[in-house]
Amino acid sequence: MAMEEYLLRLRPFITVDLLWTRDTQHLLQLVFKQPGCLYCLDSSGTLINSIEFKKLLYQSFEKGKVNFVIGGPEGLPEALKCKGKLLSLSPLTFTHQMTRLILVEQIYRAAQIHKGTAYHK
Amino acid sequence: MAMEEYLLRLRPFITVDLLWTRDTQHLLQLVFKQPGCLYCLDSSGTLINSIEFKKLLYQSFEKGKVNFVIGGPEGLPEALKCKGKLLSLSPLTFTHQMTRLILVEQIYRAAQIHKGTAYHK
Repeated sequence: MAMEEYLLRLRPFITVDLLWTRDTQHLLQLVFKQPGCLYCLDSSGTLINSIEFKKLLYQSFEKGKVNFVIGGPEGLPEALKCKGKLLSLSPLTFTHQMTRLILVEQIYRAAQIHKGTAYHK
Repeated sequence: MAMEEYLLRLRPFITVDLLWTRDTQHLLQLVFKQPGCLYCLDSSGTLINSIEFKKLLYQSFEKGKVNFVIGGPEGLPEALKCKGKLLSLSPLTFTHQMTRLILVEQIYRAAQIHKGTAYHK
């Protein structure tokens, strides 16, 4: 499945807004005005499995909106990394585009684990 | 980039053949008749970063063909896991399709690291 298909299938349960900017100041403004939990995807972050990701996501939903930030080739600004919890999807380096797809698939997988479907085994 | 694009860009350096089967016996036959190194992608495998993956790939190329096996929802048969080196792309669970895409992107990334381009930083 491609990104659009995951977003479409998630829509009845979870609304995912994708915001994109090349400008660091704009990124900081965008992130700091968002309410809710902040997770920064960073190579120095904690590695988690899909069950742990599901728990973290649904526990965070209880507090409101959940924000994930993916860096560009230079990584994330320190000002952001200090404010959020650092997570890593893998020790491998991925493209920004691939990281987005993996993240959205994990959100979809979390929703399926939450619903108890056979998608995740 | 999608799978086809990575395969197209890899073609001048590395030929990637994708074989696919639903049948375990057929999978074992396919894998055991291949010469060269065998790597099984499995959640119990060693986590590696992209630099380590590049080293492993190019060291294996010196011995000939390199074979990666991705399991289905039930994972890989034990007979295969005993024969190959176990690698894990991430503690997260991915779909078979996503695992294939990630693997091909890592092969492309390895080729770029080997060539010394700016793709991987």
